[in-house]
Amino acid sequence: MSDIVIGRNSVIETIKSGRSVNKLLIQNGRKEGSINKIIKIAKDRNLHIEYVDGKKLNAITKENHQGVIAYVPPYDYKNLDDILESVDNPFIIVCDEITDTHNLGSILRTADAVGVDAVIIPERRSVSLNETVAKTSVGAIEYVPVCREKNIARTIEKLKKHNIWVFGADMAGEKAYYDADLSGSVALVVGSEGKGISRLVKERCDFLVRIPMVGKISSLNASVAASILMYEVFKKRNG
Amino acid sequence: MSDIVIGRNSVIETIKSGRSVNKLLIQNGRKEGSINKIIKIAKDRNLHIEYVDGKKLNAITKENHQGVIAYVPPYDYKNLDDILESVDNPFIIVCDEITDTHNLGSILRTADAVGVDAVIIPERRSVSLNETVAKTSVGAIEYVPVCREKNIARTIEKLKKHNIWVFGADMAGEKAYYDADLSGSVALVVGSEGKGISRLVKERCDFLVRIPMVGKISSLNASVAASILMYEVFKKRNG
Repeated sequence: MSDIVIGRNSVIETIKSGRSVNKLLIQNGRKEGSINKIIKIAKDRNLHIEYVDGKKLNAITKENHQGVIAYVPPYDYKNLDDILESVDNPFIIVCDEITDTHNLGSILRTADAVGVDAVIIPERRSVSLNETVAKTSVGAIEYVPVCREKNIARTIEKLKKHNIWVFGADMAGEKAYYDADLSGSVALVVGSEGKGISRLVKERCDFLVRIPMVGKISSLNASVAASILMYEVFKKRNG
Repeated sequence: MSDIVIGRNSVIETIKSGRSVNKLLIQNGRKEGSINKIIKIAKDRNLHIEYVDGKKLNAITKENHQGVIAYVPPYDYKNLDDILESVDNPFIIVCDEITDTHNLGSILRTADAVGVDAVIIPERRSVSLNETVAKTSVGAIEYVPVCREKNIARTIEKLKKHNIWVFGADMAGEKAYYDADLSGSVALVVGSEGKGISRLVKERCDFLVRIPMVGKISSLNASVAASILMYEVFKKRNG
């Protein structure tokens, strides 16, 4: 069994990350510089390349493949306990039922930028790390450790036992995010765009913060909201 | 000529905003509560409704329409001079060659949330306000004033003459955004995801700020980056 990585940036990041690649498919007749770059680094690493018709790539991906896809072994989820043992002062993102693959990919992209130690997703009722997530993450999926946990409420209890402050993003949060103390070891819990964080998970958060809004639309894009909060934590750590 | 608004949230926001609607198309046999809600408010406002087969909507939209679309008059761009005359202490976003419709829609959504007074887009080499922008903005397109300007570099000179500080988001910015003075009347210039702000526009900015990144991927999603900066300005104004 294997996963598919689609598009030039994602394929380049996959190869550069050192992740093993079973096979590259490259569209016949593509002459772009970035395709040639992929061919060059693939040959440097002795990767198996097959040249195929555009139609074949269209049939495999059903989206804009830009002339290249890679078959890779399925994503290797990381062990949360190992991360908690080895990282000082961790910064963790907990995705509670994120169902939109673009949002998860975009969250991983920002998580890479701010140096998140782990992104936790639930085993059920969530997107898994498929090719759309990989593409939207523009390769960050290769670098950010992702852990898949059975029960998010119980995982939050575990984080708290490790002296990690758990804060949830919620419209009903008592404090604006920029007035909250987000320093130290923290886990940020983000919910789905429509429904937010589920009740059982919300009850276990140490505190809830809200992103103030003064407009007419009642919510932000889930990955935008998560990114604003991630950068607030980043600033507290590095600013 | 008319524009199309696609999907339930966008259609609801369009009707609620008071924008005129030429016609609603609703898919036969859809029974969801949100569809019934649309039918109810449309009837309250005496809007013309046509019930059609799903196939017809598929053919018109080529994307997920959720059973409803609305035909509306083309977007009515606002006059920048009028806004500059009437608004105290303006907060303006300048999109320099944003070519991705999802990014523009997402920028409008956050712009609504933080109370931006105008979003400026160039007449050429930019996306216009089409149905994808409307849908990604989840209706914010109806509330945020958008101005279309011939020449962005000249527009920036105009903003500066109105004592507006113009700051550009750029990887080479001398200061991290959270160390910069973003208070007062400000315009935030954001570039395209691939190429950033064009040289001529960048040279006219009063200063450049960067969003620090510590990961392996070299850029953030354009709308995420813009949203982080918009919220920094918002915080300085309201925090």
